[in-house]
Amino acid sequence: MKKTLIKNGTLVTAADTFQADLLIVDGRIAAIGSALPAEGADTVDAAGLYVLPGGIDVHTHLALPFGGTVSSDDFYTGHKAAAFGGTTFHIDFAMQVKGESLHSAVERWNAKASDKAVIDYGYHVGVTDLNEAVLAEIPTLATEGIPSLKLFLAYKNNLQVDDATFFKVLLQAGDNGMLTMVHAENGDVIDILVKDALAKGRLTPEWHALTRPDWAEGEATHRAAAMAAMAGAPLYVVHVTCAKAVDAIAAARAAGQPVMGETCVQYFHFSIDNLRQPDGAKWVCSPPVRTAADQVALWQAVRANHLQHVSTDHCPFFMDGTKDLIYEGQPVRIAGKELGAGDFSKVPNGVPAIENRMPMLWATGVNTGKISLNRLVELCCTNPARIFGLYPQKGTLAVGADADVVLWDPKANHVFSAATHHMRTDYDIYEGWAAPAMPVKVFRRGELLVDGAEWHGRPGSGRWTPRKAHGEVL
Amino acid sequence: MKKTLIKNGTLVTAADTFQADLLIVDGRIAAIGSALPAEGADTVDAAGLYVLPGGIDVHTHLALPFGGTVSSDDFYTGHKAAAFGGTTFHIDFAMQVKGESLHSAVERWNAKASDKAVIDYGYHVGVTDLNEAVLAEIPTLATEGIPSLKLFLAYKNNLQVDDATFFKVLLQAGDNGMLTMVHAENGDVIDILVKDALAKGRLTPEWHALTRPDWAEGEATHRAAAMAAMAGAPLYVVHVTCAKAVDAIAAARAAGQPVMGETCVQYFHFSIDNLRQPDGAKWVCSPPVRTAADQVALWQAVRANHLQHVSTDHCPFFMDGTKDLIYEGQPVRIAGKELGAGDFSKVPNGVPAIENRMPMLWATGVNTGKISLNRLVELCCTNPARIFGLYPQKGTLAVGADADVVLWDPKANHVFSAATHHMRTDYDIYEGWAAPAMPVKVFRRGELLVDGAEWHGRPGSGRWTPRKAHGEVL
Amino acid sequence: MKKTLIKNGTLVTAADTFQADLLIVDGRIAAIGSALPAEGADTVDAAGLYVLPGGIDVHTHLALPFGGTVSSDDFYTGHKAAAFGGTTFHIDFAMQVKGESLHSAVERWNAKASDKAVIDYGYHVGVTDLNEAVLAEIPTLATEGIPSLKLFLAYKNNLQVDDATFFKVLLQAGDNGMLTMVHAENGDVIDILVKDALAKGRLTPEWHALTRPDWAEGEATHRAAAMAAMAGAPLYVVHVTCAKAVDAIAAARAAGQPVMGETCVQYFHFSIDNLRQPDGAKWVCSPPVRTAADQVALWQAVRANHLQHVSTDHCPFFMDGTKDLIYEGQPVRIAGKELGAGDFSKVPNGVPAIENRMPMLWATGVNTGKISLNRLVELCCTNPARIFGLYPQKGTLAVGADADVVLWDPKANHVFSAATHHMRTDYDIYEGWAAPAMPVKVFRRGELLVDGAEWHGRPGSGRWTPRKAHGEVL
Amino acid sequence: MKKTLIKNGTLVTAADTFQADLLIVDGRIAAIGSALPAEGADTVDAAGLYVLPGGIDVHTHLALPFGGTVSSDDFYTGHKAAAFGGTTFHIDFAMQVKGESLHSAVERWNAKASDKAVIDYGYHVGVTDLNEAVLAEIPTLATEGIPSLKLFLAYKNNLQVDDATFFKVLLQAGDNGMLTMVHAENGDVIDILVKDALAKGRLTPEWHALTRPDWAEGEATHRAAAMAAMAGAPLYVVHVTCAKAVDAIAAARAAGQPVMGETCVQYFHFSIDNLRQPDGAKWVCSPPVRTAADQVALWQAVRANHLQHVSTDHCPFFMDGTKDLIYEGQPVRIAGKELGAGDFSKVPNGVPAIENRMPMLWATGVNTGKISLNRLVELCCTNPARIFGLYPQKGTLAVGADADVVLWDPKANHVFSAATHHMRTDYDIYEGWAAPAMPVKVFRRGELLVDGAEWHGRPGSGRWTPRKAHGEVL
Repeated sequence: MKKTLIKNGTLVTAADTFQADLLIVDGRIAAIGSALPAEGADTVDAAGLYVLPGGIDVHTHLALPFGGTVSSDDFYTGHKAAAFGGTTFHIDFAMQVKGESLHSAVERWNAKASDKAVIDYGYHVGVTDLNEAVLAEIPTLATEGIPSLKLFLAYKNNLQVDDATFFKVLLQAGDNGMLTMVHAENGDVIDILVKDALAKGRLTPEWHALTRPDWAEGEATHRAAAMAAMAGAPLYVVHVTCAKAVDAIAAARAAGQPVMGETCVQYFHFSIDNLRQPDGAKWVCSPPVRTAADQVALWQAVRANHLQHVSTDHCPFFMDGTKDLIYEGQPVRIAGKELGAGDFSKVPNGVPAIENRMPMLWATGVNTGKISLNRLVELCCTNPARIFGLYPQKGTLAVGADADVVLWDPKANHVFSAATHHMRTDYDIYEGWAAPAMPVKVFRRGELLVDGAEWHGRPGSGRWTPRKAHGEVL
Repeated sequence: MKKTLIKNGTLVTAADTFQADLLIVDGRIAAIGSALPAEGADTVDAAGLYVLPGGIDVHTHLALPFGGTVSSDDFYTGHKAAAFGGTTFHIDFAMQVKGESLHSAVERWNAKASDKAVIDYGYHVGVTDLNEAVLAEIPTLATEGIPSLKLFLAYKNNLQVDDATFFKVLLQAGDNGMLTMVHAENGDVIDILVKDALAKGRLTPEWHALTRPDWAEGEATHRAAAMAAMAGAPLYVVHVTCAKAVDAIAAARAAGQPVMGETCVQYFHFSIDNLRQPDGAKWVCSPPVRTAADQVALWQAVRANHLQHVSTDHCPFFMDGTKDLIYEGQPVRIAGKELGAGDFSKVPNGVPAIENRMPMLWATGVNTGKISLNRLVELCCTNPARIFGLYPQKGTLAVGADADVVLWDPKANHVFSAATHHMRTDYDIYEGWAAPAMPVKVFRRGELLVDGAEWHGRPGSGRWTPRKAHGEVL
Repeated sequence: MKKTLIKNGTLVTAADTFQADLLIVDGRIAAIGSALPAEGADTVDAAGLYVLPGGIDVHTHLALPFGGTVSSDDFYTGHKAAAFGGTTFHIDFAMQVKGESLHSAVERWNAKASDKAVIDYGYHVGVTDLNEAVLAEIPTLATEGIPSLKLFLAYKNNLQVDDATFFKVLLQAGDNGMLTMVHAENGDVIDILVKDALAKGRLTPEWHALTRPDWAEGEATHRAAAMAAMAGAPLYVVHVTCAKAVDAIAAARAAGQPVMGETCVQYFHFSIDNLRQPDGAKWVCSPPVRTAADQVALWQAVRANHLQHVSTDHCPFFMDGTKDLIYEGQPVRIAGKELGAGDFSKVPNGVPAIENRMPMLWATGVNTGKISLNRLVELCCTNPARIFGLYPQKGTLAVGADADVVLWDPKANHVFSAATHHMRTDYDIYEGWAAPAMPVKVFRRGELLVDGAEWHGRPGSGRWTPRKAHGEVL
Repeated sequence: MKKTLIKNGTLVTAADTFQADLLIVDGRIAAIGSALPAEGADTVDAAGLYVLPGGIDVHTHLALPFGGTVSSDDFYTGHKAAAFGGTTFHIDFAMQVKGESLHSAVERWNAKASDKAVIDYGYHVGVTDLNEAVLAEIPTLATEGIPSLKLFLAYKNNLQVDDATFFKVLLQAGDNGMLTMVHAENGDVIDILVKDALAKGRLTPEWHALTRPDWAEGEATHRAAAMAAMAGAPLYVVHVTCAKAVDAIAAARAAGQPVMGETCVQYFHFSIDNLRQPDGAKWVCSPPVRTAADQVALWQAVRANHLQHVSTDHCPFFMDGTKDLIYEGQPVRIAGKELGAGDFSKVPNGVPAIENRMPMLWATGVNTGKISLNRLVELCCTNPARIFGLYPQKGTLAVGADADVVLWDPKANHVFSAATHHMRTDYDIYEGWAAPAMPVKVFRRGELLVDGAEWHGRPGSGRWTPRKAHGEVL
């Protein structure tokens, strides 16, 4: 019986903040109390520290093939970076390729993940090619621990599905307690706008944003919500970036529809102005970073619970994939953003963010008074666990839960930099940004992964964790 | 020089109501004044009568092939009925068939219309099959007097276009001062809902409405408005039936987008309850008749100028096309609603309304205080002329305009009935409804078409009237 | 029988624009037609000119005692200025003083007006001291041609009434077909904010705006609308300046309440930035000029018909009342804005605008495409006539109406200046602003008052014009 | 050292639900854990039970003089009833009478409470007569543990304050970290409507509602929120009953204003239809019970966090105060609703609800899926503690908090009745309503007050509990 006693910390849940000791026994939270007895336990002094549940990020793309290369974090490096940022669980997207069964996609993802994983994880399945067999296969995923699906209304002639496909999946998912997730942008319009821009010689990264206007996201979000309403099925909108999309979700919710959504941390902080910089390609992701007014709308959306989660859409690429990066002492070289030099439409889409998420939300949300620390826990830990069928095993500091526990130092005075971060990429979109609060100890099921600057994570120790169907609609 | 002097009437325009004489010279309005001299003129005493501009109906389907039959009014019978209802101009839809050029569609429509027409008329062109040649052909229509196009987001695998097609047409139309009209329902969803209903044995006309929910219209309306915003092109939404669609239009307009819309007169008066009657097939049209709450929303929409026109979508079918109807003394038999006996999805879609429109709007809108008589003129005459490039030739009582003039008796005490109406169909959706105000004399370019119960219209006397591009956005 | 024939002009009504001749006989419009016979008529060539109905301004304060001085235009100079700006009718406020009967106020106003008037005019009565006798007196005003009342929710301890008084007047007015007008700002809050600012030495004109925040106007507007709803009586909100107040009116209207409103021309053009200028006192009026965002909201409000009229609240003061102004060759000296030097709260409230109104609305509204010329006529002429019981005698170019007719030159290239305007004050808030369109001939009941730069108006020739109760709710 | 161990219960906080033991030591929560050691502790088996924090009700009126009588629960009987309903803390209103200091009101309330109290409690102070001395006194309340004030915009010529008073208090409260509470109805309008109804012989309880329309509440709520915005001070709206008031609060919050609100449990369940019953006087309270549509709006408001608390406004009167009620074996007779027989305006305003609140919210909110059990805890326990300066001492199950702990049996199958409830009144508005979940053991600071049907509460054992200023804005 392995015991760890975290003493004198300030525990933070989605609802409460109070000083107490926390006892871990055999990887689970066994007790929370004042002056708990220390016998037989490793003792950790958390005086002056905050004790939070481990973060959950439901939107990541590790080792994802994209645009002729692959996202540069795999299930080891991505997990290491996640842990250093206070995140101990994530859900990746197992992407069906044309003609493939959904289980085949899952198997391919298992092959990438199982030997490398350090934190615990799960999958959503991305449906890109629906037929009767695939439709029939969907319910089996739920019973096997994968109760969530994702579809794309963008990426014409590639990942995009038509409305008939989307509606059929909504019906099937709804009938089986599964949650349908949607990338909501109007791919038909974007495809035309991109071709038109290229034809006119508008090639810089700024045009990535100008060819994907907020109307395209607002439209598709409204459409997805309407189809969910007609299907009587719950919907989860990923990476909401703009006021128009927030409004569509808020209106559906006010009408009593089971529609939820997330934003990603970077959409609070960056805008088309970043795309206009010489290194604008660093911020190329889809949907694009928007405007200062949209950032205001997103803060209001997480305050007012129009959005329930803050994820990352972590999908890193090298800025310069023609050069080696030294990671854990080894040189690594992966093609990256340079693929789109001179043509915005060829820039691999995605940003690194999994390590930045919670520290930056703390810095710019909690420390500015925009949200409380409890709401940060709710957005980053508890809500995703509830929505995606992990609660109460994950997502909170409750007795009986997995001891995914993070000790945060609110006076860490960290500054983010590609020179020191743990994501396997050669740049950090938050380069030079201050992170006053940072994790100092990170436990995954009671095992100490991060101890200050030290890393104790062992590849393959992370567990794929089945999730329950019929998750909550928050 | 032919002169007609209409004396002592109460003239009504979109703005004004006042007593005056109106002088017609050679088919045009020459003067409006008090005690105008009568010499050389036929004199009509309009004391106690209202003098309105002739009605314009921009949404009709005469002699339209549909579902294995054809709409039962042709350009003669439809024009006669229109005139008896106070309408002296209409715009029909020349529908492209797959593979055909747009001009070919216009020619086919000309062949139907030119020998039969009595009132003046124009066409919109319905685009159902877009390719580069068709796209290039579009601007030529505008220069030839056809500056408006229509696309369908419904009727999957038939008339429906995808978003890419719709967006391309919006761009092309916008660049050429043309107006894009849209039938806004989500055809993908409806197709699935219809098949599901049929599979479950839900076959009655009520299911026509239940498989075309208001969300499907609200969604497509919002989508079309968003695409218009992205194209920077004006949009006109036809046959708006429900609060959700009104809200989408109102929101786009409040955001400064050039989005307009119409409802049809029947949507003020009928609901799904009518579809539940034994003769429910009479009211099968698309979008379907909705709810009492939606009727309230439509009245508010025409009051608040969220909608700018009230049309009919006149597309009549016989209720029992197995029997002869005697029209102008001749037996006529055209297959009709009976085609859908036992299967709502096979009922020919459409209702007769061109003769009822203005009298029923007067009865239920003006006489109840919901709208003023000036607003009726604006909705039925002036606005459509402005939007569709006919103003000031048509649509108002202005000096120099075509003398399309209708004398209305506000104490007519008419009751609508299939036994007495002039539409070539065996039923009237307004059977037994009172119409206190009715036209008593109808002039088209100064020529008396209707004189009480008498009909003086001559086939072929109606003129196709070219319309100007760059119509107004109201 | 005096006849004037205005030939070849382009006539503009609220609905229509068309070329025609207009015949005036004995002060009324007798005919509108093409090539009307000229015999026996003075002929005016209006080729290239627009022919509009005379403007109506329902919100003016001529010779108003205020803050130890008096507004500097009387019923002669104000009428002259109005006419030169295209306005041929106005409604002034006969203000009850404490203890006085309403009729006494009317008599005092008659004494100011009757010998001086040139254009036609009417009164609203401002109720400041209600008791049972005054409440009983209200209906008699309606029968005597004064069917509108005004109350103030601002000016604590002076004009301000409490909610009980306001509600009683609403009930009484509603029962008698009268219209209640309201100055909607929360006077209690403003009084405290002003005292606080003065106590803190915040004395510049900018503080006039900062102590009268938009919330104070939005609040009182919402309150007045709610009370009107509870009284079941129509309401007219004067001088709406901000988005918050527009929103309150729009919401009440959308809920079916008979609430209307006006803005004044200056609120489209000026902002708190003007108050921050050294000569900021020129723009001190109540409610204050706001922000650029509020200007945008006001344009949208007149487009969307949330507001129905554009008036002036014309209430001029000298900027430097210590110096003579030469007016019609005579020196005039009236204390003015200098009374508030060093204390914003003592600056006489008001701006000169009656001459600028229609030209500036044309320049910045019509010529920029924000509103049509028809809408300008509707806002400035037809709507106020309908709402305030003057239609169809005034407000339009209809046969039978008073021949209040203005010929406008759209290529006048005028520039406003205190050196050339006709308002009796030493500054013009539009000094240096271009007015491309200006009146060139102004007829009041067929009498030529303005002929280019020449003035033919005779004091005492203007008529007090009784108005009908039960005006329209637009 | 007194220890109590509650074993095997399902603990519920605002965020979490999990099975654990809960250890109480010396009146505070000492530990929460799995299989906590029982030595030295009284052990309570909570298997099958839910363990919730004690309820907090911030809106009660015990022993309140009103309308010639007094509310029939005093600080003993009211506390007993509260405890049986799962509530262990309340805040009563110490009401200033004209001319009195605020401290004098507090002293009068202390005299009523200290000897009788069983549960813990606090006060808000009701300000009804403001002068400079009273204004200066306000901050001293905050430092003495009373950081909340209440003002009335209704009850003309009695409790009602004018806007100037309200605004001054907002400013003073805001400057001192205090919260201003408001009864938001327009008293001026209501006073006139009531007098009018009485004059017309409209005397039945239904007219209590008809003379206090929802517009009057929506108006005053909007006004209070606007004044709070202008004061830059937080606001808390008590007893919100209708959609219009919810909308005003939601709009202010969406604009970033620190506006909060509560509803009371009875407004979810009763309507004007109850007032129309022969015993309608039972439901006479202010604001009145409304409509089914308003009930829907209230449920949506607590879901969407437009409202943050559900209180009771507990203010019981006998239905028939001419008869004795036997309470704890003693006859009691207090004048009640019969005072208003034949005149709705004389019915004492108020309903008994303190015992029903949490069981009925559970029955109709949690068991129907409208809100989660966590949200019930948040609404009834945690939020009021945070807002009113009691957190984390009260309001949650956190280590270190007062052991106000309630064991609920979700299968209690209770039915409410005046025959069995503990409120000192002769009727129960929920007579015959089923309450599936009921408290079975209630601890106040670790002391067992309620044990099944047994009552162990001792008069005088309840503590007045000082509250902190600068409560949270949620």
